[in-house]
Amino acid sequence: MVRTDHVCWSRRNGYRLPKNPEKAIAGTAFDAALGRELHEVIQEAKRMANQIRQSSDLWDLEHYLTQRRKEIDRKYDYRYSQLTDVLGRLLYENRLSEEELRGLREDKMESIRSFAKFLREGAA
Amino acid sequence: MVRTDHVCWSRRNGYRLPKNPEKAIAGTAFDAALGRELHEVIQEAKRMANQIRQSSDLWDLEHYLTQRRKEIDRKYDYRYSQLTDVLGRLLYENRLSEEELRGLREDKMESIRSFAKFLREGAA
Repeated sequence: MVRTDHVCWSRRNGYRLPKNPEKAIAGTAFDAALGRELHEVIQEAKRMANQIRQSSDLWDLEHYLTQRRKEIDRKYDYRYSQLTDVLGRLLYENRLSEEELRGLREDKMESIRSFAKFLREGAA
Repeated sequence: MVRTDHVCWSRRNGYRLPKNPEKAIAGTAFDAALGRELHEVIQEAKRMANQIRQSSDLWDLEHYLTQRRKEIDRKYDYRYSQLTDVLGRLLYENRLSEEELRGLREDKMESIRSFAKFLREGAA
């Protein structure tokens, strides 16, 4: 089965506002980025489907969906232990703004920025 | 890679009309059924894409495409040795009419009908 349900981070991690405001901020940012990325894939899938003229276009759409699903599954790791790296990557990919992380402790922000920087340097 | 090119039977088997009229009839019928089935998948993919509201709909579309691609790859076997079974199955699935096979030798038609009957009885 290829089906994946992208349940939001907050629900997976079962936190409740305002019990842990830091987790709430991180979870909200994670969910917002995931929602935007899924929206992007939905728009692209609709656009590609609309343009299908022949069978190769059909299998191009399938290939695109498989690739994006695997990429999203890999990227949006729900484990709390991975959160710094996940948010750092989203920052690096401009899928998240620092603004959305406002309220996190400075040491956590440092780890997130540092991972984003690491990825930027690796790509350069 | 999941991409598959559904090149028509005639091109794969390189026959030329009217050198072998039987192969021409069989190849034309094969291509017509394949074309209709691909058209059906294209229409359904467009319909599904149009209805996408959330991410699960997206992965349902991917799953549908993967299943149909595998099924089509299995069903439309291009080898001449498999042609009787392929046409028999298409007849059984009502994807082909006997009318489209008119001109084949009676013994070949018998093999095709016999395979269609075998599948019908297996399904009953």
